[in-house]
Amino acid sequence: MGEFGKSGVVVRDIARADGKAVGKLARYGVATVHEAQGRLGLLKPRMRSVWPGAHACGTAVTVLAHPGDNWMMHVVAEMIRPGDIVVVGLTADNEDGMFGDLLATSYRARGGVGLVIDAGVRDARTLAEMKFPVWSRAIHARGTVKATVGSVNVPVVCAGMLVNPGDVVIGDDDGVVVVPRERAAEVAAAAEAREQKEEATRKRLAAGELGLDIYGMREALAKAGLKYRD
Amino acid sequence: MGEFGKSGVVVRDIARADGKAVGKLARYGVATVHEAQGRLGLLKPRMRSVWPGAHACGTAVTVLAHPGDNWMMHVVAEMIRPGDIVVVGLTADNEDGMFGDLLATSYRARGGVGLVIDAGVRDARTLAEMKFPVWSRAIHARGTVKATVGSVNVPVVCAGMLVNPGDVVIGDDDGVVVVPRERAAEVAAAAEAREQKEEATRKRLAAGELGLDIYGMREALAKAGLKYRD
Amino acid sequence: MGEFGKSGVVVRDIARADGKAVGKLARYGVATVHEAQGRLGLLKPRMRSVWPGAHACGTAVTVLAHPGDNWMMHVVAEMIRPGDIVVVGLTADNEDGMFGDLLATSYRARGGVGLVIDAGVRDARTLAEMKFPVWSRAIHARGTVKATVGSVNVPVVCAGMLVNPGDVVIGDDDGVVVVPRERAAEVAAAAEAREQKEEATRKRLAAGELGLDIYGMREALAKAGLKYRD
Amino acid sequence: MGEFGKSGVVVRDIARADGKAVGKLARYGVATVHEAQGRLGLLKPRMRSVWPGAHACGTAVTVLAHPGDNWMMHVVAEMIRPGDIVVVGLTADNEDGMFGDLLATSYRARGGVGLVIDAGVRDARTLAEMKFPVWSRAIHARGTVKATVGSVNVPVVCAGMLVNPGDVVIGDDDGVVVVPRERAAEVAAAAEAREQKEEATRKRLAAGELGLDIYGMREALAKAGLKYRD
Amino acid sequence: MGEFGKSGVVVRDIARADGKAVGKLARYGVATVHEAQGRLGLLKPRMRSVWPGAHACGTAVTVLAHPGDNWMMHVVAEMIRPGDIVVVGLTADNEDGMFGDLLATSYRARGGVGLVIDAGVRDARTLAEMKFPVWSRAIHARGTVKATVGSVNVPVVCAGMLVNPGDVVIGDDDGVVVVPRERAAEVAAAAEAREQKEEATRKRLAAGELGLDIYGMREALAKAGLKYRD
Amino acid sequence: MGEFGKSGVVVRDIARADGKAVGKLARYGVATVHEAQGRLGLLKPRMRSVWPGAHACGTAVTVLAHPGDNWMMHVVAEMIRPGDIVVVGLTADNEDGMFGDLLATSYRARGGVGLVIDAGVRDARTLAEMKFPVWSRAIHARGTVKATVGSVNVPVVCAGMLVNPGDVVIGDDDGVVVVPRERAAEVAAAAEAREQKEEATRKRLAAGELGLDIYGMREALAKAGLKYRD
Repeated sequence: MGEFGKSGVVVRDIARADGKAVGKLARYGVATVHEAQGRLGLLKPRMRSVWPGAHACGTAVTVLAHPGDNWMMHVVAEMIRPGDIVVVGLTADNEDGMFGDLLATSYRARGGVGLVIDAGVRDARTLAEMKFPVWSRAIHARGTVKATVGSVNVPVVCAGMLVNPGDVVIGDDDGVVVVPRERAAEVAAAAEAREQKEEATRKRLAAGELGLDIYGMREALAKAGLKYRD
Repeated sequence: MGEFGKSGVVVRDIARADGKAVGKLARYGVATVHEAQGRLGLLKPRMRSVWPGAHACGTAVTVLAHPGDNWMMHVVAEMIRPGDIVVVGLTADNEDGMFGDLLATSYRARGGVGLVIDAGVRDARTLAEMKFPVWSRAIHARGTVKATVGSVNVPVVCAGMLVNPGDVVIGDDDGVVVVPRERAAEVAAAAEAREQKEEATRKRLAAGELGLDIYGMREALAKAGLKYRD
Repeated sequence: MGEFGKSGVVVRDIARADGKAVGKLARYGVATVHEAQGRLGLLKPRMRSVWPGAHACGTAVTVLAHPGDNWMMHVVAEMIRPGDIVVVGLTADNEDGMFGDLLATSYRARGGVGLVIDAGVRDARTLAEMKFPVWSRAIHARGTVKATVGSVNVPVVCAGMLVNPGDVVIGDDDGVVVVPRERAAEVAAAAEAREQKEEATRKRLAAGELGLDIYGMREALAKAGLKYRD
Repeated sequence: MGEFGKSGVVVRDIARADGKAVGKLARYGVATVHEAQGRLGLLKPRMRSVWPGAHACGTAVTVLAHPGDNWMMHVVAEMIRPGDIVVVGLTADNEDGMFGDLLATSYRARGGVGLVIDAGVRDARTLAEMKFPVWSRAIHARGTVKATVGSVNVPVVCAGMLVNPGDVVIGDDDGVVVVPRERAAEVAAAAEAREQKEEATRKRLAAGELGLDIYGMREALAKAGLKYRD
Repeated sequence: MGEFGKSGVVVRDIARADGKAVGKLARYGVATVHEAQGRLGLLKPRMRSVWPGAHACGTAVTVLAHPGDNWMMHVVAEMIRPGDIVVVGLTADNEDGMFGDLLATSYRARGGVGLVIDAGVRDARTLAEMKFPVWSRAIHARGTVKATVGSVNVPVVCAGMLVNPGDVVIGDDDGVVVVPRERAAEVAAAAEAREQKEEATRKRLAAGELGLDIYGMREALAKAGLKYRD
Repeated sequence: MGEFGKSGVVVRDIARADGKAVGKLARYGVATVHEAQGRLGLLKPRMRSVWPGAHACGTAVTVLAHPGDNWMMHVVAEMIRPGDIVVVGLTADNEDGMFGDLLATSYRARGGVGLVIDAGVRDARTLAEMKFPVWSRAIHARGTVKATVGSVNVPVVCAGMLVNPGDVVIGDDDGVVVVPRERAAEVAAAAEAREQKEEATRKRLAAGELGLDIYGMREALAKAGLKYRD
């Protein structure tokens, strides 16, 4: 953690989560992974997909950036390996459009599978047409300067959550979740188990059975004092 | 009103608005019904449809829930009758994902036609695919516990508006409006009259006539002091 | 500027930006025009398109309106010339639905190409079906009164930006930008130059070249103290 | 509840909470009363005292007002009886300064002991000097019109909470709480009990004892899975 | 208006409002001046005094600054004449602490009487001890760079309101109001008249008379449909 | 970092920053320390002191808590050593009053010097009278339950900033700043140097000298393109 919040550093070699575990996690949505992980790892709800239906799962390369300055977002491009997702934390609140279709073209060419940024982005229409997955706190045309160095591949806080380089990051219409690198395989297994169980429940609910009965809640509710009345 | 805000109660039998009036109200949008009712009954603008184009009109079964706890949302499922819409008020501000595709499956199986909740929901993509209408203040994957009892079918405040069980609730892309049970027929009639009048006005406006002339505003504007200048 | 903020005035004759320059500007997105103009002219990011994919470019006819009162939005209809876009500033924060499909029908019939309003609008679904471009701070069904006069075609502040009648206003999914009337031709030329340059860069980035090299950033980054580490 | 949200009505005679119970409740702070009532009745945290240290406890006379219009706040003055507190709900979000030192002078002259308003107020400095207790969502100089009738002494929603005429309303630096008229005596008794218990606890905590031991939490924590580690 | 929003310009000579009018306006609060001016000129309610009880009235010297950059706030110091108040508009939303006790010392030494800034300030405690009046949208310690030029003494938008150099700016606990230079004398006279009238009303209200009678509202209320009921 | 975000753990032994360095840091305000540390470590500006004039400097004992649940705030009391400041991060946004005068009494009795919590607190008046320093995002009476375990003395994110147990935390009216344990001495020295330099500058500014000259900015401004005009 010595590197946290430090400016002026680019770390070239990072340990990435196991590819097989990442592949498995990619099958599940954010809500499922978040539950499978014990209800941890969610970024704040202000992080929204730029276009509906986006889904991405990749290993984090991280950026610490200053508000209104996207210099480090060019630096990170060189660090992207196929399957990476870029995660950008800011040193202060900002809604400027720090990312657009040119950077998306560059990231994709390097193998990047998405972007998560606690600031604004622009060229929203083109990003949707390119089907490049982006989660941001704002969409705004306002451009940025390239004047102050930040860092690449140091731990960052993004939308209230700590992200370490190499962690698994998953995004969909429900938001963004982070799985620590070393927990990837375990969480993937838990997600799989959860999904199977939910599928069975879904069928029973569709047939009109009540969650009250499927989950056996009636006794606990009565014990907690719930009273029925006509 | 003795029940307002009371925890631990499930009311089984509620009086619902007249089905015929509900059927009529279902033909109109939220803006029209709100005007027909004398500009009353709107929930706060923070209530947004989870997917564009959703429209629902139903009789309210209500839930009083605690933040981060969706226990009562299972309890209410048993109370749903065909044509009902579930309306959830919270005891404090919250954006957790208290509702997802499993509950949507359950509510639909019981005849529920939609959900209005002053909190978050998740599985947004699946809800859109299911075409299950949901209005919420947030979309977020964060899961909830089942630990504290609230109430079902007591009067609740949802997004700033009082909703009584059995009231008519209508939602579309413009928001959500509540029509008190006993006013349903009267408001439906007023909505119909309004819609007919608007249709005629629309044609005149499309032909280039001015609202200034159609509504006869010029004299009142002059009287109010409006001056034209070249 | 003597007219700024003045109520009770409708200015009939305004000088509009040169049609040829407006036509050129219409080819570019908001981000491009904002950059071409030296990063000026953007309205606040709260201004969002009512439907995805909207794009409009027109000459501003302006409205100064009071919260919850859309009287002047009828007055402005008579002032619209083909190619105009209506820009509405408010005297206080408001999210009421001050504009809907009837006014959209009227504006379009008069040749209006869009609306930018620092308040709410309604009939969102119909506006999307009509493909009438609208940027607003909110979507809400709440109706308005017609009681207090404001002004038409005086300078207004809209979402934090000064807009003079006759200025060019461009909107897309990235927000809204204003180009002062007298700068229209100059900014259009700069936008064209920028677009051509970006097209060349896009190809190189798509081929895997790095922005670091294309823009020659490495030296400046080293000078600014950026260190690489394995 | 037939009156809820209805415009154009002034109810002259309302039943007020028992004076003795009100007198008892006046001894306690908002947090204590809220707990004594089973954690119910709080207005949203956006309601802040205009000056630090304010405390008020009175019986509610209610106002339903339209944004930017304070006409009904003159009408309610006539309905104030000694010991009343005026509670104002709005039909839409608004931060205009709907109340100032003149109305404060008038309300006090009639026996009013405070104001709770889900909008803005002005003359903040003078209100502080007068020591007239006011809770509002904003302080802003912006003046209002007197154009549209609302209601007096109908049930209203104020900052997310239902308030009926005659309910007890208590405010201090922690916010505002409502006690339904019929529960006043019961809640006052519970508040007294709670306060006595807290006094004893306070002494033990001040002496260095731990809440863990005083409340006997250790076993429950261990059972819930809490682990200590060096 | 050609200068609006232009970067890189410092205007040395500006016309200031007449000193006598400024002196008169200094006797009144923001609410009074705002009313006297026809309910115009208020900045958004997010502008709050850093310490309670501050009051300032001066002629505006203006700054257009970039977020997170306070370079121009040093440049403006040289332009301050005794009786000036510095007004800072930003090119994008920002809450950094762009001003602290050193700049306050400098502005005061040059004759400056206050600061109005649509961003953050710091050293709040010292500013209060110095009794230097400051209105800002935030208090935050975060420091700024000195890297990009803005402008001094061009028209700016500050918190939603246009401010021209030389205009009169008044601030107190109710917010901030701008009086255009050329209207200063007229508005001062109207404020004086208003204040006298209010003084008389205050006495009658304190004696228990009702605003309903003093302002003669009863007939208009009845005409608008207000009904009294027991 | 393996502990980050983990629930159910209480770490008894933590390494605290050197007492001498903490003592030195206690002499400086938040703005000074933030600058001395290279503009790092600030919590979001939403963190406000409950009473004006509060100042605290201590070593962090940390709490990871669930919204609306203050159980761990009792657990942490036992871990407090003289000179500690309690820092509470939440797993989701929350404004409930998780801390009041009883816990303040307890923390003080154990040697605690303050509290920093990204949620709400209550008993604001009593906290001010006790002069117990508290920084929070809200003040609200709403009480909490004791149902779900979190953690004590694991790394937490509080208001957007990572805080490790044993770090130095300083709060005043300008906000809250964190100094990593291992940097305490170095930052204290830098703060001292900065303060001395500022004192000299303050005198020159008070005498009417300009920052432009003291800091030698004129050349850089001219180079950056700033033009003066009469």
